[in-house]
Amino acid sequence: MTVQMRTDNVDQINLADPAAVRQLIRNGQHPGHTAGLAPGYLQGNLVVLPGDWAMDFFRYCQRNPKPCPLVGVSDKGDPILHTLGQDVDIRTDIGSYNVFRDGELSAQVSDIRDLWTDDMVAFVVGCSFTFEAALVDGGIPLQHWEKNLTVSMFYTNIETTPAGKFGGGMVVSMRPMSHAHAIRACEITARFPNGHGTPVHIGDPAEIGIADINKPDLGDPQVIGDDQVPVFWACGVTPQRTVVQARPSICITHTPGSMLVTDIPSHGANDR
Amino acid sequence: MTVQMRTDNVDQINLADPAAVRQLIRNGQHPGHTAGLAPGYLQGNLVVLPGDWAMDFFRYCQRNPKPCPLVGVSDKGDPILHTLGQDVDIRTDIGSYNVFRDGELSAQVSDIRDLWTDDMVAFVVGCSFTFEAALVDGGIPLQHWEKNLTVSMFYTNIETTPAGKFGGGMVVSMRPMSHAHAIRACEITARFPNGHGTPVHIGDPAEIGIADINKPDLGDPQVIGDDQVPVFWACGVTPQRTVVQARPSICITHTPGSMLVTDIPSHGANDR
Repeated sequence: MTVQMRTDNVDQINLADPAAVRQLIRNGQHPGHTAGLAPGYLQGNLVVLPGDWAMDFFRYCQRNPKPCPLVGVSDKGDPILHTLGQDVDIRTDIGSYNVFRDGELSAQVSDIRDLWTDDMVAFVVGCSFTFEAALVDGGIPLQHWEKNLTVSMFYTNIETTPAGKFGGGMVVSMRPMSHAHAIRACEITARFPNGHGTPVHIGDPAEIGIADINKPDLGDPQVIGDDQVPVFWACGVTPQRTVVQARPSICITHTPGSMLVTDIPSHGANDR
Repeated sequence: MTVQMRTDNVDQINLADPAAVRQLIRNGQHPGHTAGLAPGYLQGNLVVLPGDWAMDFFRYCQRNPKPCPLVGVSDKGDPILHTLGQDVDIRTDIGSYNVFRDGELSAQVSDIRDLWTDDMVAFVVGCSFTFEAALVDGGIPLQHWEKNLTVSMFYTNIETTPAGKFGGGMVVSMRPMSHAHAIRACEITARFPNGHGTPVHIGDPAEIGIADINKPDLGDPQVIGDDQVPVFWACGVTPQRTVVQARPSICITHTPGSMLVTDIPSHGANDR
């Protein structure tokens, strides 16, 4: 399938091609959400940290692969992510970045060339776009897709395994579905360990410390039908939250929704 | 199943219990091979490196998950592997260690308490015991098990993705089986990404740079029957080989066959 779109300065750019999408973003011609762009290719969350924080964050991801499925780690000071595609420059290839200083959001920028230092390490963590597309392809309707909402996210009492200053509760996303679809969803998402994998909980929200399923901590509320059950997945907000709480002098993430588009096929992300 | 064994100083130790096996090893009462001990629990290869080599080795494993499936990484200077079980002390809980200095094997010891420093990081990499047991349980006979041989291993032309000074060709292990079993083996090993996962090659050895399938670079030769095909898996010797070739001032590994026995169920190694 070839997706094509016409915008002000863009004639017939092939939005199915991840390299073309990155070029568009790098040129400042597509600063928005990346959902639906380059379908079939893995998109990722970004966390950039100074070198002396990097090893513990690496450990944190290794110890918590469901919320933090690492798909790429840069060499120290090298902004090119050689393992994630052709000419992926982490300083320019994301539409919008959040810059945190001492744990506080200090700026939102479209380019981090002036912030990148020889000491920095970039981590790319898999995201739910991968498995959501596979669920829909597998015949499981997703309410937040159909209603154009942001998926409901909750803070939970599921403790992550700490590493250095990183730790705390897991953040989860919730998708309502029938019991039959919940079973199929486990089967489908088991194939995507680099996109949060299988659910962390199905059923009673109270069991994982959620007081009111209708009041998400982040994102939009969703309706759970009488024949449906809430299905919870580990969420990529977990690493972002612990990084901010650890208060490094500087930390740079993507702005939620503006992900890094890689050249890695979603189905092949675990192939090597 | 409870496996029990009587040795000189050991009365009815429960060799099905990973903590009991580690205790035995720690007491110097079982220095040998760990194959068959604590069945159903994940065993691991060990690589210990000085702190300034650790981050690049971490990257190397992240970039090459088939030969280097990381199951645990210690905190810097902490010899206790908190995430791999109860009271796992990496300095004493392996039967035999190889100590390399500047890339040369300098000693083989049963305890590294006097070598461990505040700067060191221990990496535990999954091993093939996990998936081999699953293959046999799945009805696939393994020749090297039946004949009590060491599996055939080969150097190949499959380049690993480098990180810092680490890189080079992948080492593979080979198991001959029928074509039907090869298909089933892919199905079974797909469930063990922490134990090398699915094969890296099936069939023609020349395609991956192996000149003579009857002359393994390591281990014993195996017979490939007329109705059989050679099936190749990424091998945990790969990280050991690149670490030695990078010539760090010191590096400590397990002695082949004497693995770390963890408390992690083989089937649950990817659960978090």
